[in-house]
Parts: sequence; C-alpha cells; structure tokens
Amino acid sequence: MSVPAELRTVEWRDGAVRLIDQTLLPAEEVYIEIRSIPELIGAIRRLAVRGAPAIGVAGAYGVALAARPLPGEGESEHRRRLESEALALSAARPTAVNLGWAVERTLGQARLGDSPSVRAGLALAEAHRIREEDLELSRRMAEHGLAVLPDPARVVTHCNTGGLATAGGGTALGIVLAGARAGRSFFVHVDETRPLLQGARLNAWELSRAGIPYVVQCDGAAAFGLSRFRFDAALVGADRVAANGDTANKIGTYALALAAQAHDVPFYVVAPRSSFDLSLATGGEIPIEERDAGEVRGFRGSSVTPDDAPVYNPAFDVTPAGLIRGWITERGVERPPFAR
Amino acid sequence: MSVPAELRTVEWRDGAVRLIDQTLLPAEEVYIEIRSIPELIGAIRRLAVRGAPAIGVAGAYGVALAARPLPGEGESEHRRRLESEALALSAARPTAVNLGWAVERTLGQARLGDSPSVRAGLALAEAHRIREEDLELSRRMAEHGLAVLPDPARVVTHCNTGGLATAGGGTALGIVLAGARAGRSFFVHVDETRPLLQGARLNAWELSRAGIPYVVQCDGAAAFGLSRFRFDAALVGADRVAANGDTANKIGTYALALAAQAHDVPFYVVAPRSSFDLSLATGGEIPIEERDAGEVRGFRGSSVTPDDAPVYNPAFDVTPAGLIRGWITERGVERPPFAR
Repeated sequence: MSVPAELRTVEWRDGAVRLIDQTLLPAEEVYIEIRSIPELIGAIRRLAVRGAPAIGVAGAYGVALAARPLPGEGESEHRRRLESEALALSAARPTAVNLGWAVERTLGQARLGDSPSVRAGLALAEAHRIREEDLELSRRMAEHGLAVLPDPARVVTHCNTGGLATAGGGTALGIVLAGARAGRSFFVHVDETRPLLQGARLNAWELSRAGIPYVVQCDGAAAFGLSRFRFDAALVGADRVAANGDTANKIGTYALALAAQAHDVPFYVVAPRSSFDLSLATGGEIPIEERDAGEVRGFRGSSVTPDDAPVYNPAFDVTPAGLIRGWITERGVERPPFAR
Repeated sequence: MSVPAELRTVEWRDGAVRLIDQTLLPAEEVYIEIRSIPELIGAIRRLAVRGAPAIGVAGAYGVALAARPLPGEGESEHRRRLESEALALSAARPTAVNLGWAVERTLGQARLGDSPSVRAGLALAEAHRIREEDLELSRRMAEHGLAVLPDPARVVTHCNTGGLATAGGGTALGIVLAGARAGRSFFVHVDETRPLLQGARLNAWELSRAGIPYVVQCDGAAAFGLSRFRFDAALVGADRVAANGDTANKIGTYALALAAQAHDVPFYVVAPRSSFDLSLATGGEIPIEERDAGEVRGFRGSSVTPDDAPVYNPAFDVTPAGLIRGWITERGVERPPFAR
C-alpha cells in the first residue's frame, strides 16, 4: 500500500491563508480561507490550526496578510497597522514559541521595504520561505529520527505531531509517516489526548490515511501499555524547549515521560530549533496557557460534569530534561547544553 | 454547610434490587428496580452499578433474587437454578474480586436451607448483612484514613470511590466525605477518568452535593498538578489486591501512582479486605478485563476517531506494590505481607 504524500496543512492561495479546519477532523475534511487578522487569531485560538510549527507558518502568512496595503492607506498608517496586527497575532497563544518567532522573522523582512506594496511582497516571500523550510525541517527530523529507531518499531505518541501539526510533514509522528513512505514498519499506540482529543481525532486520521497500524488508547492507559508491551520509543513534539532542555508540550506529556522512564523506554522530543527558547533557563519560566473549563466539562457540546463544576485545565505541562533521552531536531539528536 | 448522609447506592426494596443508575449521573438521578438475574448482569455490565464493593452488594442481593422460588419449581430444580444463576452472576465482570466473594458467601448461606423458601430467606438475610457490613467497613476505612491525613488536606483521586462505589459510604473518596461530615477541610483534584468519566461525572456529583471544594482535571493533567501544588495524598480504590500488594484498579491508576512517587506524595489504596485476593501471589495473575472499543472511539455518544479505529481499552491496570504507601482497610493502614 502506498503512503500518501505530505498534507497541505497551511498554505497561501488566492490571496488568503488556506487552512484545513482541524476542529472538524476526522469527520469532515474542510479547508477554510482566511482574509483578516481577527479571523486568523480566532482560528488559532479555537484550534482550527494547532501544533507549534503549523501555528508558526500560519503566523508568517498572517503577517503577509496584514502587510497588504488597504485602499487609501498612507505610508505611516500602513507601518503602524502592520506592527499592531503582528503584535496581536503574536499573542494569540502564549506557550508555543514558534508563533512569535515566525511573526517576528516575517515582520523583520517586511520592515526592510520602503513602501506598503514592497513590504507586502517581502512578507509574503518570507512566509513562503518559512513554509518551505518547515517542510524541509520535517524531512530532516524524520531522517535523524529514523536513524535511532529499529525496524519494525512500536512507539507511543501524545497529541498530534503529524502533518497537521506542521506545514505538512510532521515532527514526532512525521518520523513514522516518512518511515512508512520509505517502507519501514511501525505500530503506534496513540494517546487520545484529552481534552481536545488531537490523538484520537488527528493522529488516528493521519495513520488511517497512511495505512499504518495503530491503536487509540486513553491517556491513562499509556503507562499500563508500556508495562505490557515492548516499546522502542515514546515520540512527542514540543511547544517550547528551555535552555536546560525542560520541554513544554501538550498536557499529559509529562505523565507519559514518567511512564516511559519507569519502563526504560527512550523518550524523544521531536521539534525544530524554532521551538527552542534559549532565553529561558528552565521550564519554570515557560508561560503555561490555561484554557476554558468547557473543554474538560464536556466534549463537542456534550456535558459530563455537574453544571459549573470547577476545572483545572492547563493546556501544556513541562517535562523535566532528565526524563528526555534526546531532542530530535533538524540538526540531529541533540542534548543540552544546546549549541546556539 | 451540612454534608448529606450516605447514599443509598444499592438496596433491597419491595422484592427487587434497587440501584441508582450511575450511567445517567450527574444529569439525572434515576433509581432502577431489578427483578431478574439477566437484568442484573446487564446492569453490572453496562456499569449502571460499578465500584468493586457496590458490585459485591449487588451480587449478594442478586443471589437473594435468584433464591426466590419460582411457581411450580421443585426442590432440585430450585437448587440447580440457584447455582447456575449465581455462577452466571459471578462472571458478569472478571476483575473485581468482591463480586465472586459476595455471591459465594451469600450462596453458602442459602445452601444451608433445606427448602426453596428457607434458602431464599437465608440468602436475603446474608445479603442484608453484607450491605450493612459494607456501610460499616466504609466508616472504619474513613476513620483509619483520616488518622493519616492532615487537616486541611489537598488530595487527588482517580475513578469514583465515593458512596456510589459501595453500598453508600465509599472507599477512597469515602474518607473525604466522612471527614467533611466531621468538619474537616479538603480540596480534591478529581481525575476525570477516561473512558467512562466516573471522576468527572460521579466524584464531581458527590463532591458538589457535599459542598466540598474540588476541581475536575483531565487524567493527563494529574502529574503536572502534582508538580505545581503541594498534595498531601493520592487516594484510590481497588478492584483486586494480590498477596504481594500489587493492586488492580481503574485504568490510569498506575500512571497516577508513578506521578505521586515522582513528587513524593503518599499514594494510598483504600479498599475493604473483600477486595484482597491472597490466592494470587502477584498482580501479574489478576485477569484484566478489556472493554468495548466504542468506549474509547467516542465520548458520551459523539464519535471522535475515524470509524472502526482500532482501540486498546483495558478497563484496569496494575500498580506495583512498591509505589503504594499503605493499604487502608477496615483493619487499619496495612502493608504486605497481609495477615490472613
């Protein structure tokens, strides 16, 4: 069975940012076209686009969108609006560092232009470069990841880290997808990843589509699975990596890392260097987004708890560096202290 | 605020086994009356009644139901039917040891009768004793548990272990409920407990009802919570405890125990001695029920994964004895080797 090519998760088409609406998967594969910054911020906040690298690419195209001159807009007005829309975009979600990084990089190019239309052109060119680079980063991470995994390999994943989490290639699950395209065999235990079930919805969809064998499991079943089956690796993504290697990723990652350690299964973080924030000494400095109680009280409109049940809903957790075997980046399998 | 009295989770009323239908909580508080063994087996399988001690009490009343003579039934027919219905009832769920224990104990009394109506009377008397004892066991476990907890105490729980898991008093959460009745202060982190959300649905309902402060959290958030707040204990129940202390309990318990260990938080199993199976040397011998894929594929009726996504759905896991600080039973805080 042939494994399909990379997804087109985020791209620029006909003057709009085109995204696959991840909130509707796996039931419906719907693409949305975004033409304004408020719309894009809304899409990021409601997780129509998610995954640190994918948010970065979307943010870069957002700057390209903001850089398009409005009718009748003067030079200084354009500069001011571009800066303020870029700032708002950067703040759409606090934990992933890629968003701020990609916005700043694209804005930096735009600022070099001395007219609105030149700025728009420079921003779009830079956003295209970021997307192309992201696809290339996925290919390199996959290559380095495949070098440390046996064939066949049984792995466990948490949250979606496939093509949907990036421009199209993937980080952690990208290794599996690229491996399958190259004829390697995998069996994947997919943590469902409450509260928003990115594993059950998105990893399962990507693995089904690629014909790769997998099982979906409740997050609480991962530790028991690790005690009952022989695993070759746990593979997760990252929203932000601190200088000492402490890693913020989707809530539940830390619990999986503890279980992997208990069973001596190598735990790898797979993330591009743009997810590293070497300005932060440790994970204690990473801001952790707390999201709405409704995500835990129910799912897609169904209510589970008593009305108004109080909720603790951190969107991310921090896995201490000591639990992580290696950080698979575009440069190879790295360990702290990370080269700049 | 006054804390309400114990629940009436399972009782005998007007010749029927009366159960609160736990699948409908917290939205609706509905009691069902069961008059046949197939109905009771169905209720146990679909988890209308759940929690090892509650299933035990339901099983005992089930034997009382089976022991009632049918019109025109002869002496040996009655004996044969009683034995076969009791056997079927015992097998309704495989992991909890209380069910088999309570059925066998009630049947043992019934067998002493030399006529159908005497057997029926003996069975019902024994089932009433088991229920009364269960309420008394909850009171004693609470007393021993409160002796090892500070006031106020922050605790984390997994799955429902309140009044709904027993005849009405509770095991792990029973300590909190009894403590609140005695004026002690608690703050409870409630693991939602996927796939069937007994924490989000049932613990939250019991805690709301009792006016005890709590938060519901995704199972994957428990480890991060343990890293961010100072906890005094993790309190869980048990479906079966082996002779060496290895403990089968709701899937996700083992992951919580690993996280408690990482943060040096005492992890207590709270269970009556009827949940102990000293015939099994270790947890490796405990049969682990795997349940239907639909429980994981969906969430309260809404479908989440691609259709027919393969699922790994063990209903229980085994926490090794080494992760457990103590077993709080009706006898006190015990440690293996357990006295017979």
